[in-house]
Amino acid sequence: MRATIMHAAGDVRIERVPDPTIIESTNAVLRVTRACICGSDLWPYQSMERSDSGQPKGHEAVGVVEAVGADVHSVKRGDVVVMPFASSDGTCVFCQEGLPTACIHLSFFGNQGNDGAQAEAIRIPYADGTLFPLPVGEDDALMPSLLTLADVMGTGHHAAVVAKVGPGRDVAVVGDGAVGLCGVIAAKRLGAERIVLLGRHPDRIALAREFGATDVVSERGPEAVERVRELTGGHGVHAVLECVGLAQAMETAVEIARAGGAIGRVGVPQDPAMPGSQTAFYHNVTVAGGPAPVRTYIPELLPDILEGRIQPGRVFDRVVDLDGVPGGYRDMNDRKALKVMVRP
Amino acid sequence: MRATIMHAAGDVRIERVPDPTIIESTNAVLRVTRACICGSDLWPYQSMERSDSGQPKGHEAVGVVEAVGADVHSVKRGDVVVMPFASSDGTCVFCQEGLPTACIHLSFFGNQGNDGAQAEAIRIPYADGTLFPLPVGEDDALMPSLLTLADVMGTGHHAAVVAKVGPGRDVAVVGDGAVGLCGVIAAKRLGAERIVLLGRHPDRIALAREFGATDVVSERGPEAVERVRELTGGHGVHAVLECVGLAQAMETAVEIARAGGAIGRVGVPQDPAMPGSQTAFYHNVTVAGGPAPVRTYIPELLPDILEGRIQPGRVFDRVVDLDGVPGGYRDMNDRKALKVMVRP
Repeated sequence: MRATIMHAAGDVRIERVPDPTIIESTNAVLRVTRACICGSDLWPYQSMERSDSGQPKGHEAVGVVEAVGADVHSVKRGDVVVMPFASSDGTCVFCQEGLPTACIHLSFFGNQGNDGAQAEAIRIPYADGTLFPLPVGEDDALMPSLLTLADVMGTGHHAAVVAKVGPGRDVAVVGDGAVGLCGVIAAKRLGAERIVLLGRHPDRIALAREFGATDVVSERGPEAVERVRELTGGHGVHAVLECVGLAQAMETAVEIARAGGAIGRVGVPQDPAMPGSQTAFYHNVTVAGGPAPVRTYIPELLPDILEGRIQPGRVFDRVVDLDGVPGGYRDMNDRKALKVMVRP
Repeated sequence: MRATIMHAAGDVRIERVPDPTIIESTNAVLRVTRACICGSDLWPYQSMERSDSGQPKGHEAVGVVEAVGADVHSVKRGDVVVMPFASSDGTCVFCQEGLPTACIHLSFFGNQGNDGAQAEAIRIPYADGTLFPLPVGEDDALMPSLLTLADVMGTGHHAAVVAKVGPGRDVAVVGDGAVGLCGVIAAKRLGAERIVLLGRHPDRIALAREFGATDVVSERGPEAVERVRELTGGHGVHAVLECVGLAQAMETAVEIARAGGAIGRVGVPQDPAMPGSQTAFYHNVTVAGGPAPVRTYIPELLPDILEGRIQPGRVFDRVVDLDGVPGGYRDMNDRKALKVMVRP
């Protein structure tokens, strides 16, 4: 089959690789019907050291189950399923507690040598604990939004949940990428009163406003902090959704948080130390978040997608086939595309 | 009157200063009957640059109200009261939300040029919002424990609350100072199952065990992490109470936290950036805490002290008069005393 392999920063190729097969009895093989390129794929796209074997890429997919091992019972051949960005066994203590991204058998697709979903097919470890069946056909019109349950919608929701967004809260979303925009959807959905988007791309801002952003701050650094404070009576916001991962974004997040407020960080932190530690301390600001337990959130978010109340699939502004994937990386990296869907 | 003035690192003097008076109509004057030296007083004791005017010290007190301004209504002359470590107006939005340490009129006693409580008397700004009347006489036998409501007991409780300690939880307390020991009391009181104290002073460890610590880890760094993991099935603890404030303590706190767990930090962070940011992220560990809203906690903690269920006053292992204060600083700094009570 054909799959996306990254060999170095800027070097993404479509290559012939062996078809995935059932290796363990808990495996499934998924024919990928929709995948996509993630903002987090751009970190290695900018920094990966050259590797001859390369890294298969892609960690978000919807697909059709082609085969299952003898110990797989919750999905069967022919099922249309969401593949969250990490596999989990579904039975360990962390999975039982609703945190599958801490599963004792956790593995991240498209990372650390694991198979990727920007491919015709992919082997799924622990299929029962990982895949989530969908009550739709493989070409349902809602497919773009359903695909976001694999990562960005669940991740934006996680940021909002751990930042304690609720009715009447003032919220700021740092970052206007796909996760930030899904964070806007999540904040609106959870009842936020004011939703301030910090971003500067006109098309993304327009979409954020349609998703529920009430205000936009396009300044950066101290100017952005000042603007958010102006909008919130000088106090800052109750909840900040940090959807970038760079130090400056985290600094801003800490500075615009209201005393006693919370930051939900889902941008993958690029630095070993967190800036703003003392400010967060003196203001009793909670910092929470991490890899989102997106599978746990599917039962809550799915009905809103199926019934049309939220449309996170609108973050996709381009569709490519496998041959279009290298160009998709380039255009997302150049900010010419917001989020690229892949139809293998 | 006589008061404690710090002029430089290691230079603490008892000096004659003007008697405090009512300046604003919201003020009270408190005759200090009990004060104490705080672990956080040791930071400036180790680092303060020389100042001719000096800094009055002391931010924890119980005393008797001597005079009140015309607009003070909730305390009156003769009342025995707790003076929390910061003054707050009691009316602003943060005070109403239960976070007086974010009061818009916040000021820290014994810091930033404000008057201190290691003195015969002290002026209290916003007396209504700051002071908390006690239903006891000024020489009640419970006075040591009641004095801890001004800071260390409320601070240990805050760490436990924001670290989400509850029934059945595994808890670690980093630091065996007075706050850490009060954290043990708080964790026990909130129903923790296992309470691991990270500390190495035999007398403090003995007290921690009496307060409810089930395990003691005296190693540091990676060895301490390994020991805590051994005690908790390899997973770490649900809640960490970080009661030190140094980078190594925070690193340890992050490493021993269970995925999905929380750190309540009440040790004043000595570094602008927080170590362990990426580990905390990948494990979805929440970092919360800050200056404790100790006044808010008094109604919850006071009955347990009055009825003898908790005895946080046992953290005091020395009593001095004002002349003994400089020696008290020295002995706390040399770890010869755990916490020194002052009877002016």
